Amino acid sequence: MPDIGKLLWPKSVAVIGASSDTHILRGRVFEIIRSHPFAGAIYPVSRSAAEVQGLKAYPSIDALPEPLDMAVLIVPAEYVPAELERCGRAGIKAAVILSSGFAEAGEAGARMQREIAATARRYDMAVEGPNTEGFANIAASLCANFSPAMDKSAGPLTPAQALGRGEVSIISQSGGLGFAFFDRARPRNLRFRHVVTTGNEAVLEISDFIDYMLDEGKTDVFLLLIEAVKTPEKFKRVAEKALKAGKPLIVRKIGQTEPGRRAVASHTAVLAGSQAAYRAIFDRYGLIEGRDFDEMLDIAAGFLACGDRMPVGNRVGICTSSGGAGVWMADACAAAGLDVPVLDDATRATIDVHLPSYATSQNPVDSTAQGVQKLGYAQFARLVARSPSIDGVIVVITARRSAFLEADLPKLKELARESPKPVFMWTYTLPAARTVEILNEAGYPLFTDAQGCARTLRAMADYRLLRERALRASETTGPAPARAKVRAMLAQSGPVLCEYRARPLLSAYGIGADDVGELAHSRDAAVAAAQAIGRPVALKVQSDDIPHKTEAGAIALNLTGADAVRAAYDRVLASAKRHAPAARIDGVLVQPMAPPGREVILGINRDPTWGLMLMAGLGGVLVETLGDVALAPVPLDQAAARALLGRLRGAQVFGSHRGSPPADIEALADLMLALSQFAADHADDIAEIDLNPVIVHAQGEGISVVDALIVKRETETAERRGAAE
Amino acid sequence: MPDIGKLLWPKSVAVIGASSDTHILRGRVFEIIRSHPFAGAIYPVSRSAAEVQGLKAYPSIDALPEPLDMAVLIVPAEYVPAELERCGRAGIKAAVILSSGFAEAGEAGARMQREIAATARRYDMAVEGPNTEGFANIAASLCANFSPAMDKSAGPLTPAQALGRGEVSIISQSGGLGFAFFDRARPRNLRFRHVVTTGNEAVLEISDFIDYMLDEGKTDVFLLLIEAVKTPEKFKRVAEKALKAGKPLIVRKIGQTEPGRRAVASHTAVLAGSQAAYRAIFDRYGLIEGRDFDEMLDIAAGFLACGDRMPVGNRVGICTSSGGAGVWMADACAAAGLDVPVLDDATRATIDVHLPSYATSQNPVDSTAQGVQKLGYAQFARLVARSPSIDGVIVVITARRSAFLEADLPKLKELARESPKPVFMWTYTLPAARTVEILNEAGYPLFTDAQGCARTLRAMADYRLLRERALRASETTGPAPARAKVRAMLAQSGPVLCEYRARPLLSAYGIGADDVGELAHSRDAAVAAAQAIGRPVALKVQSDDIPHKTEAGAIALNLTGADAVRAAYDRVLASAKRHAPAARIDGVLVQPMAPPGREVILGINRDPTWGLMLMAGLGGVLVETLGDVALAPVPLDQAAARALLGRLRGAQVFGSHRGSPPADIEALADLMLALSQFAADHADDIAEIDLNPVIVHAQGEGISVVDALIVKRETETAERRGAAE
Repeated sequence: MPDIGKLLWPKSVAVIGASSDTHILRGRVFEIIRSHPFAGAIYPVSRSAAEVQGLKAYPSIDALPEPLDMAVLIVPAEYVPAELERCGRAGIKAAVILSSGFAEAGEAGARMQREIAATARRYDMAVEGPNTEGFANIAASLCANFSPAMDKSAGPLTPAQALGRGEVSIISQSGGLGFAFFDRARPRNLRFRHVVTTGNEAVLEISDFIDYMLDEGKTDVFLLLIEAVKTPEKFKRVAEKALKAGKPLIVRKIGQTEPGRRAVASHTAVLAGSQAAYRAIFDRYGLIEGRDFDEMLDIAAGFLACGDRMPVGNRVGICTSSGGAGVWMADACAAAGLDVPVLDDATRATIDVHLPSYATSQNPVDSTAQGVQKLGYAQFARLVARSPSIDGVIVVITARRSAFLEADLPKLKELARESPKPVFMWTYTLPAARTVEILNEAGYPLFTDAQGCARTLRAMADYRLLRERALRASETTGPAPARAKVRAMLAQSGPVLCEYRARPLLSAYGIGADDVGELAHSRDAAVAAAQAIGRPVALKVQSDDIPHKTEAGAIALNLTGADAVRAAYDRVLASAKRHAPAARIDGVLVQPMAPPGREVILGINRDPTWGLMLMAGLGGVLVETLGDVALAPVPLDQAAARALLGRLRGAQVFGSHRGSPPADIEALADLMLALSQFAADHADDIAEIDLNPVIVHAQGEGISVVDALIVKRETETAERRGAAE
Repeated sequence: MPDIGKLLWPKSVAVIGASSDTHILRGRVFEIIRSHPFAGAIYPVSRSAAEVQGLKAYPSIDALPEPLDMAVLIVPAEYVPAELERCGRAGIKAAVILSSGFAEAGEAGARMQREIAATARRYDMAVEGPNTEGFANIAASLCANFSPAMDKSAGPLTPAQALGRGEVSIISQSGGLGFAFFDRARPRNLRFRHVVTTGNEAVLEISDFIDYMLDEGKTDVFLLLIEAVKTPEKFKRVAEKALKAGKPLIVRKIGQTEPGRRAVASHTAVLAGSQAAYRAIFDRYGLIEGRDFDEMLDIAAGFLACGDRMPVGNRVGICTSSGGAGVWMADACAAAGLDVPVLDDATRATIDVHLPSYATSQNPVDSTAQGVQKLGYAQFARLVARSPSIDGVIVVITARRSAFLEADLPKLKELARESPKPVFMWTYTLPAARTVEILNEAGYPLFTDAQGCARTLRAMADYRLLRERALRASETTGPAPARAKVRAMLAQSGPVLCEYRARPLLSAYGIGADDVGELAHSRDAAVAAAQAIGRPVALKVQSDDIPHKTEAGAIALNLTGADAVRAAYDRVLASAKRHAPAARIDGVLVQPMAPPGREVILGINRDPTWGLMLMAGLGGVLVETLGDVALAPVPLDQAAARALLGRLRGAQVFGSHRGSPPADIEALADLMLALSQFAADHADDIAEIDLNPVIVHAQGEGISVVDALIVKRETETAERRGAAE
């Protein structure tokens, strides 16, 4: 692994291709580097000019007066491989390739990109790009990029009065968006450490930079913009490392929609994977998804300000002096999934003594303008924060005038120091610059968006919970005998395992062991099996060549009596043969009909990026049409299984409804665990598993696995994968 | 109707209760009025001070040196009724009551509020408030309010370089939020006309102010913040007037959630109605719902800038020089329901000649930084705007540096003048102040939020469509004989009409005329009826006392053969009698089973604010649990019926699925029309109608109304309503 420290913390930098013309990118990048107080040496390298922007230029990297740490390349793509080779030979251990025209520009470009990667490997160089906008090490005042957002005219790199003591880093594949993030954060007085844009990622990926910065130990919050993760295993490892370290990764995956994916493919030459699978990975590793720049910055500011005083739950108290603005915030909190409970009587009594008769202490606590004038924001928030009914406080303020807050500053500071619960401030008017300073000095982020404020509180409560769960979690595998048994059976199986073949494997993990049924090879055997069962049965033709029995008419349900079974036996066989004349039919499975309940679909599928995912959805054509499914990487634990079910839009179908008892969620979660463990243990051999449907009975009555199918991973594919690794 | 002109355009103003202490509201309001260049006379009225803020004060309104137009009251609530009476006697025709402590503070306050209303009526006074923050007539520089956002220090009331030629007015029940809106709009250079906050609406409501401003003819876009509409009929009339005039009402209804509603109830003493019904009314009258301040201001800016050049469809072309930012915008467009189609080949060819090899013209058109440097934004947008595949253009820019745009200004102006399609600019970095000015001068709004930009384009396309539809629509009633027949039948009915009673009424409007069935009074009659039908039947006990037959076990489905019918006849009767021993049973309805299809629930319900609403939802316990229903006020037309179905989350269930044909949406829409017309024609007599379920068959095969129930409106209620009018 090359040393990213050489890239981000060089003692000397050369710009290969630097120009005096600051209207073109080759001039801009040199101008921007020089405009900031970077302490190291900066050299222009130019084949044509003797002097660049007033500095002596060198014709080649070899001609520099001292050994160089890092080179910025901004020459046409076709010259880049040779220049990088020259850098390697000269012992330079890091480079930023700003030039475009590589993998994103067709096969010739892709070839050059592979050349770059090989050169970097050969010389163990830390290479950022190509097709990147560069990076900024804010802590070192090194701006190796051509972003207009990093222009000196855009303002200082670090705020005079920063919020909290922590630092934020941005890592983005897109250069434009990465620096836009930094730019949009300016009014918020956050302290940034690094802004890195990774471009085509010929060598270094987003994950590498996260890893480096975690080791560096100075970044407290990460903002990530991802188009497509290149090495999923590395990403998962780094995400877990961040979660364990308690350094939140706030992420947006772009290219979520069809036109968005098309655009990603065209400008980075990579395919953006399934959005649902990305979301499942984010959920698993505690990455916090943001909707847009502002929300992500809100969340970052929340974490920075609160440090380890995270909310222990979802209940929020709202202090307001404007009735309407209190309503607005209450709506935002409810929309973010926060509770806004009526406060307890004892707390209300302590508040009421300060309020005029036309105010209310219920929650939102509306002091009216008169009430807050008497109390001040700090004292108001302190009274509400004491309530045992809430886990955090949002104070609705008008930050247009700073005088009132200025007078309150000592008390605000005291509250920020002492309150064990987070206290957030949201202004409904625009803030005066001085107000932001006062609040930041006191240790509060100032939110201007109500939803961003509410979602931040929610995200922090979720993160705390998920992190605690993750720290407790441990690697699991199924019991060794079951693993060995299934491995052996899989080795002997054909590519598709229809139900009666799949069931013994699944049963080894306790999946659907009660629902096996009996395979009949004759009409009479079917009748005998049905009679032995003694209640209505289903008949299902068994053939590895007919994985979808319903479409083939190879299934008959709800049969009672010998006549019905006999007739159905003939009918399903005839229908199956008509549907697939060449199919090899192994018999007809006779099973008891499952008692009624909620229908669920469980499945295992392989995402091209992230591998095997457990999928859960609500059954029935209607919800199939709605596409209401949720994914999680395998294996998962009870909490993750329940969280997965909770993500279904129709989740409340599991609750009690019109007097019917709630569903046996525990049994369903256990089944999901077993299935996910089965998939994880045999990941290399499994392409797909369908349990469709699973019937979830009433609480305490378990589940029925009504059908099962396993599709093996083609060996060829497995081999290809092996070769690629 | 009092003259709102006297309130908003007075020649002289007195502040009753004015104080020299600018730390209290009584001092603040006087200070703010005087700090702006209002041309009229301003008088302080004070019982205790001879001079207020350097001006001679008057002990009473009667002591003023000239007849007065308008009084601002800021005295304790208990003095307000007498002061207002004094104003009325003095011939003052308008007043703003800033004081709190009225209906929001309990019964004593409510009584004072009624007194105020009576006084205003008696003297024909235009009264704003009480419990309001006042208003600002920006055009007259009159700021009769105590909002910190209207402080002179917050900046000038009108921007130096305004966007477009149009003007915006804000009307809000909440004072804090209303002025916050104005404040948040400052960086956008919109030209405002009025900001009015209506408070408790003892006299003047939001609708009155909209009406006045529509007549005034100077407001082009309205921003509304509503907690609860007081007089629904007035609101509907004014909303229709605005739609016909093409003046968009951009609205947010606050108190959408449980804690939000609780807060509204507490601070304004009114109950916020059903959010779903409000949404239905907004949809009907073309009000544009915004999610937050910024989105509403985005939409306002879009309308102002585009005037009547509204997009004719949903297809957008995206110009970008940053690949990542283009993806970001494509995602935002797709999320807003816009299409981002690949451009036509002819347009692409004209663009490609300007782009480097690693750029792409598909859409988003990604010129890369190099490409846009050559083309400039205006020429780039013009090339894309020419494509017949798109209805509007979004240009992704970086507005951090203004020089590039400055050079492009003449071409940008030309494009804004000439383009028949809207062209929007979105910046991913923060904009420099100069950039905003340049773009506004050229006629473009500058969006900083991608989603706000995309949603604005979508809202404009929707508004155009809906307005065209609304202008064509006309009042409808059912045919006169049907109306008369139903009126007579309703008059003779009891409070509940069970299915066999309800069907003849509904049949008069063509509703479910084929699905009537036959009422049997004996076992044998039921068998005979079933045999005459000749296919599987359903039996349903008929009793006005058993409106919900399923719960009572008073229904049997899918019966074939005399034995089954006979047994079921006894069973359902026994079950019904067990369930409701006192029920008067009229017989058992024998009906053919409907052929299968998609199950839908149609209903008519009465919203406490908005009256009768048609409700449509997808049938089945599952979706009942999801609560996936949509509402529309009655009556509605074909287009509205289809739009209503389109709003269902599960709408795609009507499309073809797994090879099954699509549903007969046309027949369903016709049924919705007939039902809504029935309800509208007999609105005074109807409390509720349920058609549950309706089975929608395959295209061309119509629908079956499987069950029907009408609940009459209680006469008592109708009388009470009559008395209140």
